[in-house]
Amino acid sequence: MVKPIRYKTIEWVGGLDGQLRLIDQTLLPGECRVVTCEEIEPLWEAIRNLRVRGAPAIGVATAYGVVLGIRKAPTTATLFEKLGEACDYLSRCRPTAVNLFWALDRMKRVAESVRTMPVDAIKARLLAEAQAIRDEDAATCWAIGQAGQHLIQEGAGVLTHCNAGGLATAEYGTALAIMYAAREAGRRFLVYADETRPLLQGARLTAWELAQAGIDVTVICDNMAGLLMRQGKVSLVVTGADRIARNGDTANKIGTYSVAVLARAHNVPFYVAAPLSTFDLATADGTAIPIEERPADEISKGFGRVTVPEGVACYNPAFDVTPANLIEGIITEKGIIRPVTQEVIEQFFQDGTCKAKEKG
Amino acid sequence: MVKPIRYKTIEWVGGLDGQLRLIDQTLLPGECRVVTCEEIEPLWEAIRNLRVRGAPAIGVATAYGVVLGIRKAPTTATLFEKLGEACDYLSRCRPTAVNLFWALDRMKRVAESVRTMPVDAIKARLLAEAQAIRDEDAATCWAIGQAGQHLIQEGAGVLTHCNAGGLATAEYGTALAIMYAAREAGRRFLVYADETRPLLQGARLTAWELAQAGIDVTVICDNMAGLLMRQGKVSLVVTGADRIARNGDTANKIGTYSVAVLARAHNVPFYVAAPLSTFDLATADGTAIPIEERPADEISKGFGRVTVPEGVACYNPAFDVTPANLIEGIITEKGIIRPVTQEVIEQFFQDGTCKAKEKG
Repeated sequence: MVKPIRYKTIEWVGGLDGQLRLIDQTLLPGECRVVTCEEIEPLWEAIRNLRVRGAPAIGVATAYGVVLGIRKAPTTATLFEKLGEACDYLSRCRPTAVNLFWALDRMKRVAESVRTMPVDAIKARLLAEAQAIRDEDAATCWAIGQAGQHLIQEGAGVLTHCNAGGLATAEYGTALAIMYAAREAGRRFLVYADETRPLLQGARLTAWELAQAGIDVTVICDNMAGLLMRQGKVSLVVTGADRIARNGDTANKIGTYSVAVLARAHNVPFYVAAPLSTFDLATADGTAIPIEERPADEISKGFGRVTVPEGVACYNPAFDVTPANLIEGIITEKGIIRPVTQEVIEQFFQDGTCKAKEKG
Repeated sequence: MVKPIRYKTIEWVGGLDGQLRLIDQTLLPGECRVVTCEEIEPLWEAIRNLRVRGAPAIGVATAYGVVLGIRKAPTTATLFEKLGEACDYLSRCRPTAVNLFWALDRMKRVAESVRTMPVDAIKARLLAEAQAIRDEDAATCWAIGQAGQHLIQEGAGVLTHCNAGGLATAEYGTALAIMYAAREAGRRFLVYADETRPLLQGARLTAWELAQAGIDVTVICDNMAGLLMRQGKVSLVVTGADRIARNGDTANKIGTYSVAVLARAHNVPFYVAAPLSTFDLATADGTAIPIEERPADEISKGFGRVTVPEGVACYNPAFDVTPANLIEGIITEKGIIRPVTQEVIEQFFQDGTCKAKEKG
């Protein structure tokens, strides 16, 4: 796949004395400003304040953050001291981000495995590991794109929700990787991006990165999806996933479930695109997935201006769970899981062609 | 019903030398500022710029606007001259608002019917007619509330979309009249107000007027309705209507159709509340109702800040059509039409207990 993406969500420029560059996603789409991090503190701030967001992207940024934290250590002893400090520090910036802890653990394990090497070699090995985490994420997303791209036919209308794109990963994204791959395969189609209230990741981020890649994208308000389907404008829905239970029930950004119900009512196939690492085989089904509630002011003051009367409550669940029976297939880096049932998922993981991290 | 509403959407204060007062709805919920009109020009501006909105409220405001336009005429001849000017002027402020023309026609007919009376008597008769239009609207909404209030049980969760409330009418509203009447009947329940993108009438207006009336209201983003229904929090959906075809297909604010599909999927009854004047018996079904598209910047610049990348299209249909088969019943001032079929609607209109304006 020739890369259709003209920006870098996260990029390490130069060698060990180089710098980490991130797109400040809070300023999109108004401004595409790159944040340069030469110390660990500005990276911490960038993760904390959602300048970089999306589980895979946070994992990649965290790994580079460890490098920023240790690279000036003059001796092995100070390096391991700095490593401990960096891990403690980064673990406090978004304490619920699973990929952050996964990246810290991986960096610590690698450091231990090369402890007896010269200090500069340890540093080089850690930078290489961070690059590997980034490259593996990009490769996984690329493979998801290849696995799913045939689903988007010439002239299709594809609806997506939130941002499961290159901005949420090292590159390509998950749901959006399929669009990039279909475009690269020469097909033309139109993407409808739900704006995705309250934080508007669809309007701000999905629309921005698809436009950058030269893919036709039209933003709609979330409440317009039903009309679009009734008008026959949507041939396919693809979204990302935050967590997939053993039976295929899928947690994703709030509103995904409504879209899935609407898709079923209009006989539009609804797909989820996600790496196998998103499966949480320790969770039996969606009822065991807690729904995080976020602050009311994301709704009431989402745009600077107050849009809800003072004293009126807002209910702001960040996610919902789409039951497996509404999902036509789950597109992974190893192929499409279809139909989405516990049996097929377990078979898929037992095949030996793929291994999932068991979480929890 | 003891009136639970502590504000006046439109109020004429004093006699013929009095003034018209309107709540400036563009400033809600941040500020409840009353616009005072002693001349026709500020009223024109208020209608034009949506300070007063909602078809019935526009009709009432227009009738009072005629009074403002003629009340200083010293002679019958100048009064009729001013009347013509006022009607021409007002007809240009929102040229697609049907109720505006309906109100102008009614005021002109009344003036003609009393042309031979002394000029002060004609003025008094026109003010009385404007008051009658206002009172009839309030009475109709009150009757809708009475007809539907039994549908809201103690402890119910009621979902509504957009603002079909007192702010859109002279008083009480349509969908919200049912809530006011149920509350007045002593029952407690919770209302979920869809914020209703892009213009947020639900968050800004419905939440405001329900809170004023002491009714528990929680604002949600439009994309949360499905989750709420799945959680069992919604026992009933009630919305207003902009236009109802002969077979019961109902045009209403964009997003209503999605809510109706979600309600059906969760076995939640979906009701429409509307005066009989909303029926357009000349329109056979919803396919004949055009969907107005509005400017993209309602979506992309809805809150002052740009939320969609420059150059990216937005699709902004203002309405959608909910097919009759998704509607459990239509609550009118003469009772509930149920089931919603062409046969039952025609029977309802032929009963002699009610007469509808045929539009178009």
